[in-house]
Amino acid sequence: MRWNLPPDRVPSAWFNVAPHLPVPLEPPLHPATRQPVGPDDLAPLFPMPLIAQEVTTEPWVDVPGEVLDILRLWRPTPLVRAERLEAALGTPARIYYKDESVSPAGSHKPNTAVPQAFYNRQDGIRRLTTETGAGQWGSALSFASALFGLECKVYMVRASYRQKPYRRVMMEVWGGEVVPSPVDDPDHPGSLGSAISDAVRDAAGRDDSHYALGSVLNHVLLHVTVLGLEAREQRALAGEARPDVVFGCGGGGSNLGGIALPFVPDPDVALVAVEPTSCPTLTEGRFDYDFGDVAGMTPLLPMYTLGHEFIPPSIHAGGLRYHGDAPIISSLVRAGRMRAVAYPQGKVFEAAVQFARTQGAIPAPETSHAIRAVIDEALAAKESGEERVILFNYSGHGLLDLGAYDDYLTGQLDQV
Amino acid sequence: MRWNLPPDRVPSAWFNVAPHLPVPLEPPLHPATRQPVGPDDLAPLFPMPLIAQEVTTEPWVDVPGEVLDILRLWRPTPLVRAERLEAALGTPARIYYKDESVSPAGSHKPNTAVPQAFYNRQDGIRRLTTETGAGQWGSALSFASALFGLECKVYMVRASYRQKPYRRVMMEVWGGEVVPSPVDDPDHPGSLGSAISDAVRDAAGRDDSHYALGSVLNHVLLHVTVLGLEAREQRALAGEARPDVVFGCGGGGSNLGGIALPFVPDPDVALVAVEPTSCPTLTEGRFDYDFGDVAGMTPLLPMYTLGHEFIPPSIHAGGLRYHGDAPIISSLVRAGRMRAVAYPQGKVFEAAVQFARTQGAIPAPETSHAIRAVIDEALAAKESGEERVILFNYSGHGLLDLGAYDDYLTGQLDQV
Repeated sequence: MRWNLPPDRVPSAWFNVAPHLPVPLEPPLHPATRQPVGPDDLAPLFPMPLIAQEVTTEPWVDVPGEVLDILRLWRPTPLVRAERLEAALGTPARIYYKDESVSPAGSHKPNTAVPQAFYNRQDGIRRLTTETGAGQWGSALSFASALFGLECKVYMVRASYRQKPYRRVMMEVWGGEVVPSPVDDPDHPGSLGSAISDAVRDAAGRDDSHYALGSVLNHVLLHVTVLGLEAREQRALAGEARPDVVFGCGGGGSNLGGIALPFVPDPDVALVAVEPTSCPTLTEGRFDYDFGDVAGMTPLLPMYTLGHEFIPPSIHAGGLRYHGDAPIISSLVRAGRMRAVAYPQGKVFEAAVQFARTQGAIPAPETSHAIRAVIDEALAAKESGEERVILFNYSGHGLLDLGAYDDYLTGQLDQV
Repeated sequence: MRWNLPPDRVPSAWFNVAPHLPVPLEPPLHPATRQPVGPDDLAPLFPMPLIAQEVTTEPWVDVPGEVLDILRLWRPTPLVRAERLEAALGTPARIYYKDESVSPAGSHKPNTAVPQAFYNRQDGIRRLTTETGAGQWGSALSFASALFGLECKVYMVRASYRQKPYRRVMMEVWGGEVVPSPVDDPDHPGSLGSAISDAVRDAAGRDDSHYALGSVLNHVLLHVTVLGLEAREQRALAGEARPDVVFGCGGGGSNLGGIALPFVPDPDVALVAVEPTSCPTLTEGRFDYDFGDVAGMTPLLPMYTLGHEFIPPSIHAGGLRYHGDAPIISSLVRAGRMRAVAYPQGKVFEAAVQFARTQGAIPAPETSHAIRAVIDEALAAKESGEERVILFNYSGHGLLDLGAYDDYLTGQLDQV
């Protein structure tokens, strides 16, 4: 069963979790002075409205009309009850998911790409730079840039650039320019951290350009709350008082924040981050100030981190291969408001295939982390005979990740 | 703007165009005797309910509840107004499309794959065989087979098997077994006609197996009318009395039939088939009895054909590379109720990229034929200053066809 909302129910304001955090966020620090960064420090990279959103404590932030018009190309997205998966598991749990795979880029990322492109164009910027790992974010920003007539240059982690040529082509269809990163070492496979360094360096050096980040920062998580807000409304349509537990996969924190943050004020809703055991930021990292990138060019952020020089193994969930996590997510985990679990890749793909063969849709490797945890939660509910209402974010489809499925089906997937 | 319908508005009966055809269909003939085929001739390949649907003259055919339950995994699909494309063209025309790309397999094909799998399982069949060219149909049948616990063996045109490994993997994720065709000549690139021969030969030789066809036949077009029926209802929600003209790309006729047949009874709605100039069945073929496959194993069908031995050039719209067309579509064209136009590949991809850069979504090469014709119709309306209401079927997404876009963007696409 699916619940849709009419186009006028796309949320007209973003939900700001800041006033609801158990502990206020500590400020980002300047990489050289280690003093809190101010708006002027960020102005070479971001337009002022985004800098303001980064620090606002207003509970709601209005969504500009022009942004809403574009979000309505695919929003509101459906809330789906996974009844066939429930039946296959024989669980008394009711499993719901928010389907963000229906966006043009195939994930939740356009929810922040569109407002970021909007504010930059409003600011007179003609060109955006960014990095991409798995390609979801680069696709989203290329798409959004096309709709606002902006140039878009994407520094793509070289390993992904080689392994996933179709992601590159997708960006090019929308007019994006894609180059492998790091740009100064053609033999290096690259990492998200090094691609951020390339993109920041490019934008900082040109007056007509800004940089756009697809995760981690407060304004990114703010924008993605549209999906959680819709899910909250649709959950009522589905006749549920509330979800007992909300799951999202955790890399930089954008899709997890999108589904989880609107539920933070309700203490009866448990929140769970699901990450790969091979990049266990929240489950095994330390909480500390660290750089967002490898080269140490970004502000220092208060977050769980594996160290900014940590290069995760080449798992297929490229979107979860990040040494840190959003300060907001880190703060919630540190305060005990959210818990984190980790799964190895083999178990994740097992869950993905079970989902595809029951519900039909083929999930992204990142999303499949959430699905793995949801299946285990539903099996635990079966064991204990409990009715549980489970909600997760179906953050993206896996149609550009079929090579990973091939590895899994032919026994060539690295299990860890 | 998009119009959704609630889940209980998935049509509960299929629309049968037979009573509305200007000229009754001539019967298929037995390949050996050239006498009309009877149910017994078809029973080795198809279950009786599908054979009955092939010849029924009842105006409506009930959709089984178990089929409806599965269709609701993605149906009703949205009707979308392409306002950003309209604005880019500066046309007074209003352009609507039915978005069939949201199905698990990414096209309209599951609309018939699901009932075909259902009736076969009901008949005690344990295994289905089929052919696939571009892979859309093989994907849809693998998906449907997974949901009904059937084995599925797909004979994939060898050229596609090599060029589109991800389509193969997609079928394997759903448990389908995929082999390149023709099976008896590993050096032959294959064709849809030869793959049909392989699949029919396999099913005819085993008691536990039937064959499933994804286009051409009357029961296939019947099943796909769910999408046109929904569009007819949504068109009213959008405040339009009727479309002035309906477009669909034409290969074997399934997506075209799905969108066009429910509008056949309304003489004020023009119907247009759009095909590739390199496989111009309706625009340059002759109307005659011909085989559905290369080997001459299928019944002879009354249709426009380029000759069953015609091997179309390797254009990227693999789903349109068929020498014949559905008898229903052929009959409508022959009677003047539907017209046909043809476009070369280069102009088709130009339209596809314009669509992607305005509306966001990346269309399948097949679908892009319809988009090309729609854009030309909208430009003609601009020229004449006419308000026109245009409806087309967005039959599938192009996310597994990005190699073709790469060829186009890098100037390597064969233009004809």
